[in-house]
Amino acid sequence: MTHTLAIGPYNDDEKQGLTQDLSPIYLDGPSGVAGLDPAQRDAITAVAYKGHHPFGADEMTLLPNIGVIANYGVGYDAIDVAAANERGIKVSNTPGVLNDDVADIAVAMLIMQGREMEQASAWARSGNWAEKGEYRLNRKVSGGRVGIVGLGRIGREIANRLAAFKMDMHYWSRTEKDTPGWTHHSDPVSLASAVDYLIVALVGGPDTENFVSKDVIAALGPRGVVVNISRGSTIDEGALLDALESRAIAGAALDVFQGEPKIDPRFYALDNVVIQPHQGSGTVETRAAMAKLQRDNVLAFLAGDALLTPVN
Amino acid sequence: MTHTLAIGPYNDDEKQGLTQDLSPIYLDGPSGVAGLDPAQRDAITAVAYKGHHPFGADEMTLLPNIGVIANYGVGYDAIDVAAANERGIKVSNTPGVLNDDVADIAVAMLIMQGREMEQASAWARSGNWAEKGEYRLNRKVSGGRVGIVGLGRIGREIANRLAAFKMDMHYWSRTEKDTPGWTHHSDPVSLASAVDYLIVALVGGPDTENFVSKDVIAALGPRGVVVNISRGSTIDEGALLDALESRAIAGAALDVFQGEPKIDPRFYALDNVVIQPHQGSGTVETRAAMAKLQRDNVLAFLAGDALLTPVN
Repeated sequence: MTHTLAIGPYNDDEKQGLTQDLSPIYLDGPSGVAGLDPAQRDAITAVAYKGHHPFGADEMTLLPNIGVIANYGVGYDAIDVAAANERGIKVSNTPGVLNDDVADIAVAMLIMQGREMEQASAWARSGNWAEKGEYRLNRKVSGGRVGIVGLGRIGREIANRLAAFKMDMHYWSRTEKDTPGWTHHSDPVSLASAVDYLIVALVGGPDTENFVSKDVIAALGPRGVVVNISRGSTIDEGALLDALESRAIAGAALDVFQGEPKIDPRFYALDNVVIQPHQGSGTVETRAAMAKLQRDNVLAFLAGDALLTPVN
Repeated sequence: MTHTLAIGPYNDDEKQGLTQDLSPIYLDGPSGVAGLDPAQRDAITAVAYKGHHPFGADEMTLLPNIGVIANYGVGYDAIDVAAANERGIKVSNTPGVLNDDVADIAVAMLIMQGREMEQASAWARSGNWAEKGEYRLNRKVSGGRVGIVGLGRIGREIANRLAAFKMDMHYWSRTEKDTPGWTHHSDPVSLASAVDYLIVALVGGPDTENFVSKDVIAALGPRGVVVNISRGSTIDEGALLDALESRAIAGAALDVFQGEPKIDPRFYALDNVVIQPHQGSGTVETRAAMAKLQRDNVLAFLAGDALLTPVN
């Protein structure tokens, strides 16, 4: 009897690993749980979860014997951890292995926005360079003032990279961290007032919803740029769009959006936004490492060992 | 009588500075020198030069009393320094002030190439993200093997930034430098064999023409990526295009080209090349600093002082 349920859009390499290690039942999404027959559901003791559809109390109730939900990804806001706690279900995620990739994307998006690299590329490719001359001057990035919102594992990787660009480094976090001369702010408005580039590296979920509020965005001012590689939920997106459209801030570079992949079409009309399709961790190397860490958490649970990267 | 000749495509801010400091005669390019009347030419003692058209012995002969050619830009390969030396003419350039900008572009182009960020942007903007799902997985950048060709001022700035991406750092330079654990190679083929990302930061001019040869490119192998922020002349561009088309190497990210701005149309057909329109130093802040340093070199010469940033 199969003990593991693998839920989500796994690619072929990931399915091969899951089948080899766990021989799971596959479902495209959590809505399929109700369609399993009761004997199958009762036999399931572990869930390997991938995706952004909510996995909550209803699904857990349908799977009365699960002891672990192993999430694929560092952000586990799709999983109702409170409901899992009530049922004694352990939750794991895949931290660490994706920090470098997400930090790489954050730094590149920031420079692409300031240096208008997509527009400059289009200028060269359209023939304008040859016909009309140089692309217009843009904005120096190195030496600027950076504020990291959330100095966790990913925020720290971003900060370490940007420090090598001679940035004046600031950060918000609940507690002051041991940092090499970076300035701690206990209030996000204070942070935004002190910097030009605000980089959001928060955990998702209800606690951080709209943490980057209208007031935080306003405090950035006309030279301000918002970079988000965390979750769309962390920013008041309506306020951000208003500020971008009115040029109350200079621009944004976003890998994540509310309601993604169906993002607000107002973003498409803006020439001051770099858009990425939530590909922060989207490398062959890192996704393989994430998939393996997810499976290893399930295997540890099934063997009666402690989870490698527990959440709760 | 006007003593300074300002040659090149100066923008309005630059012209304002030149007029205020030097009240020069303006020419669009060196071909205009012959059109000045002999009395004007004889009165000229200083040239403020900007551009990529050759300024050589013929132009210098037409300006028999010039003592300085102050170049706008760090690369002065348009100026025939040997011809200047024969005539006792001093040449200056504008080093230092543009290093950060050029290094920023180099790092961003490298990540854009590996992470396919232009393609991913197009995937999101076209609606494919919503209709067809995630953009395809691409390639991890952090932790890769980097080779810097030419560890001068700009090469060092690039290397310092990339070291913060946990890269395995290698470099070629004529003499070994004092570096924090980076590996020196005395042969560019050896360097290319040891790395995935080859970043060209050479001085331009005849001494480095095609320095990144067919053999160097071949040594990179199928995971290899060429990044060039120096001069198009430093790479055997035909060999590079062949390697890109046949996938003998993985890709390229280029801010400079042979014959720019009319670049080889073979580049446009490739999906593995990031193209920028020679905008490495193209920020408002840095171009203002370059223009000021150019003028200050002319002013120093006219005052009988030593040049601030002499070339010869």
